[in-house]
Amino acid sequence: MKFLFEDIHVSTRSRTELVDVTRQVEEIMRKSGVRNGLCVIHAVHSTTAVIVNENESGLTKDIIKKIQQDFPKGAGWLHDMVDDNADAHLASSFIGPTRIFPVRDGKLIRGTWQSIFLLELDGPRTRRIAIEAIGE
Amino acid sequence: MKFLFEDIHVSTRSRTELVDVTRQVEEIMRKSGVRNGLCVIHAVHSTTAVIVNENESGLTKDIIKKIQQDFPKGAGWLHDMVDDNADAHLASSFIGPTRIFPVRDGKLIRGTWQSIFLLELDGPRTRRIAIEAIGE
Amino acid sequence: MKFLFEDIHVSTRSRTELVDVTRQVEEIMRKSGVRNGLCVIHAVHSTTAVIVNENESGLTKDIIKKIQQDFPKGAGWLHDMVDDNADAHLASSFIGPTRIFPVRDGKLIRGTWQSIFLLELDGPRTRRIAIEAIGE
Repeated sequence: MKFLFEDIHVSTRSRTELVDVTRQVEEIMRKSGVRNGLCVIHAVHSTTAVIVNENESGLTKDIIKKIQQDFPKGAGWLHDMVDDNADAHLASSFIGPTRIFPVRDGKLIRGTWQSIFLLELDGPRTRRIAIEAIGE
Repeated sequence: MKFLFEDIHVSTRSRTELVDVTRQVEEIMRKSGVRNGLCVIHAVHSTTAVIVNENESGLTKDIIKKIQQDFPKGAGWLHDMVDDNADAHLASSFIGPTRIFPVRDGKLIRGTWQSIFLLELDGPRTRRIAIEAIGE
Repeated sequence: MKFLFEDIHVSTRSRTELVDVTRQVEEIMRKSGVRNGLCVIHAVHSTTAVIVNENESGLTKDIIKKIQQDFPKGAGWLHDMVDDNADAHLASSFIGPTRIFPVRDGKLIRGTWQSIFLLELDGPRTRRIAIEAIGE
């Protein structure tokens, strides 16, 4: 059984932002030597999430707008009295910090339009995504 | 370590639809010979998702209605200028393309009311769900 | 390859509630002897979910309030004619019954603010969360 753990570090520039990390994830997968198994993409934060979808410039703006509509900042949340980012925690809770892909013949089983994004919800910050390649 | 990769192909008939694939997933699991491990259910599209819940005819209609309420079509999204399905991408992004189950003694650890569905969000189309059985 | 399967049983006290199970998950991981691999946290119900986020008392109240706002009970769902909990099924479908963590050197790769919760959506009930440690 083979394992490779490697972090991707991302510096975000806005409060809400999508950062495409597909190329870095695939590069880590290649280095791992895993032919068959899994790839886990796990953001180690409670105000980010990982999203898989199409990298089209209009759509990434739509996703951010939808997040801001569905999880409005400063809507009277209790957590805002502790730290002014309850909206970010709520979106992260619902969407989730992790996505996984099956890996076959050394490659992610990934649709043409399935790009992998870090979803920043309380930036700008430096963020860490833990990547694990596991298999044989 | 054992692996089995197999695709489930689904032809959907409506724009928004739930297709129960539990039986096919369990059949692939049986064929895999994996006694202990994981089963990954991964739809390789950016306008579908995978959902786990009860297969009750009222509830499946409720889920579709809720999707249409929360992700209305044609609500002024930028991506609709490229391809008329931003709502489908948004729902897919939030819900996610993948669900996984622990596998023990050759069976999914699955509650009585946990059926596995492809959620079509931009049908009708032919869709592919990649199933991976992994373990020993 | 090593496996450990163990259940966490939770008795919830309210209809909508978050129960922190981080300590129990980490204890099972320790017992498993798995150094590198995965930890799967899977609630075997269709009216619960698993959430990863910060255990701050204001925030956990905010999450419950947000669930109740976004998935209101008794909003005319068809499933309510069968069993009065369509709202719980809808939230469970969207959020998902499972979360996973990479495991390295015997520990979950887990951010400081990433606690693991069972999200009860139709309590009070006794609930079962299946934990699987898998790896080497």
